[in-house]
Amino acid sequence: MSMIIKVFVTGGTFDKEYNEINGSLFFKETHLYEMLELGRSKLELSITTLMMKDSLDFIEADRQTIATSCSNCKEDKILITHGTDTMTLTASYLAKHCPNKTIVLTGAMVPYKFGSSDGLFNLGSALAFVQVLKAGVYIAMNGKIFEADKVQKNTDKGEFETI
Amino acid sequence: MSMIIKVFVTGGTFDKEYNEINGSLFFKETHLYEMLELGRSKLELSITTLMMKDSLDFIEADRQTIATSCSNCKEDKILITHGTDTMTLTASYLAKHCPNKTIVLTGAMVPYKFGSSDGLFNLGSALAFVQVLKAGVYIAMNGKIFEADKVQKNTDKGEFETI
Amino acid sequence: MSMIIKVFVTGGTFDKEYNEINGSLFFKETHLYEMLELGRSKLELSITTLMMKDSLDFIEADRQTIATSCSNCKEDKILITHGTDTMTLTASYLAKHCPNKTIVLTGAMVPYKFGSSDGLFNLGSALAFVQVLKAGVYIAMNGKIFEADKVQKNTDKGEFETI
Amino acid sequence: MSMIIKVFVTGGTFDKEYNEINGSLFFKETHLYEMLELGRSKLELSITTLMMKDSLDFIEADRQTIATSCSNCKEDKILITHGTDTMTLTASYLAKHCPNKTIVLTGAMVPYKFGSSDGLFNLGSALAFVQVLKAGVYIAMNGKIFEADKVQKNTDKGEFETI
Repeated sequence: MSMIIKVFVTGGTFDKEYNEINGSLFFKETHLYEMLELGRSKLELSITTLMMKDSLDFIEADRQTIATSCSNCKEDKILITHGTDTMTLTASYLAKHCPNKTIVLTGAMVPYKFGSSDGLFNLGSALAFVQVLKAGVYIAMNGKIFEADKVQKNTDKGEFETI
Repeated sequence: MSMIIKVFVTGGTFDKEYNEINGSLFFKETHLYEMLELGRSKLELSITTLMMKDSLDFIEADRQTIATSCSNCKEDKILITHGTDTMTLTASYLAKHCPNKTIVLTGAMVPYKFGSSDGLFNLGSALAFVQVLKAGVYIAMNGKIFEADKVQKNTDKGEFETI
Repeated sequence: MSMIIKVFVTGGTFDKEYNEINGSLFFKETHLYEMLELGRSKLELSITTLMMKDSLDFIEADRQTIATSCSNCKEDKILITHGTDTMTLTASYLAKHCPNKTIVLTGAMVPYKFGSSDGLFNLGSALAFVQVLKAGVYIAMNGKIFEADKVQKNTDKGEFETI
Repeated sequence: MSMIIKVFVTGGTFDKEYNEINGSLFFKETHLYEMLELGRSKLELSITTLMMKDSLDFIEADRQTIATSCSNCKEDKILITHGTDTMTLTASYLAKHCPNKTIVLTGAMVPYKFGSSDGLFNLGSALAFVQVLKAGVYIAMNGKIFEADKVQKNTDKGEFETI
């Protein structure tokens, strides 16, 4: 399998950092490159940062931007890093507006920069799923794969589950 | 997709540790459970440690043990953690002796216990591939997937490549 | 040098954790034991958690508790882990109310649980300073040692400096 | 206290790395700068790498080099990073050949690059001790401070102890 995978970075917990001056969490730049290096990824990726936002702050225009970017890029395999809080909303939006490509959304429950992050594991699985799944929009979290519109985030447990 | 995935641990760099008394590398017990916890894996896995060996030390009997274990287990999806040095040999052996299940071998270039390990990334992708690929024997390393008998380890670059 | 060092835990950035359900920072329990294990500390320590608070939330009663605890314990060497924001206030308070022991306050700019923490380095130096300095109240941060009442936190740079 | 501390790097476990091509441990370059950055060290240090060797491989000439470097540098406060296996021998040698400065040797039981290293803790304490101790040669390990000629490495326990 040789193909170029498009990657769109949108922010989310994945990329949050700790501001040591004021003790808050914030976005600086994506850690995706560093994570791919750590994973010694040998995949051909074309990476674009669309935004760096908490997905709770996403507005309609943000999802339009993501959908348009997915439609307009020449690749058929697309990975999107995304905050978990509204990941299912974006997945549904993309299923409606960009149904003919293989799009996998992933994220993290804990920022990559904090030792205890699930980010690298999720990234590895999302990049695997996007290579082999047929056209459709999916969420890859914590080893599992979910189809858009058939998944919800259980906010009590902090995990995704089939509906 | 709901299924139980069988995992066989065989050792390899993945699971090497540093002996702080004498400065050598050695095996104690697998870090697989810890890695799955870090990845917040929600998959149903049945994990068995078959051996804890450097794959350079594998003898014919070890590969027989692995093949028999794959044939005899009731699961059709199997992940094997394995040293990278002879991973292609075991893949070929399994392709011959256990061709009717989906078997994915993975490992790491750097021990998981060392900060700079690719292990978690590889584990995430291997668990994704094993869920969706059709029957066959595969190697999942550094984001890529290779079919048994069509892959070699480039020992200069420290990476796997198609042949 | 053989002596027991008293350690009082009061919270601070040192011990903050990331809540993966709601994305906020919070206190659970101190990481001091884990840090001492990582440092393979062979010192005899008697550790007591007085409170787990952001030092911005300290009220007079909290400083009284700390001072009383310092006065009443039988040890003459005392280490206090403390948030950096009001560390100098507590140091001044202790210099007034408990001047006859060697008391060293330390903390971290980044939570220990986040890979990029200065906590372990600060802990190592604070435990060294407390063993060898004469009676007095000190702040040990980022390799340096400051006397109470002669130090301020530069909140722009995020570092302590002599005044 | 404002002073420049001289730091001599000599190798040791502290600085060992994992060669992912052949699975051996080796020296590349010191991690001291990275560790000081992690500790947000604000100390004025003058760092020189004298050698990058396992201290078991030290010959007389290496100890001569270290002693001469200590005598010839203009600083009176010196930190030496050193393998633990012959650290006491070098300490004794320096006590004989360079008795008029404050020299602290430190190292690590586990390479800094492996997550479980005591290196950062030791570095923090060694830099504290060197600032406040009077002239003499010392070993700072795992929170404790030992005088040259009064310390041995207990190779069974992997720790230093007074003799």
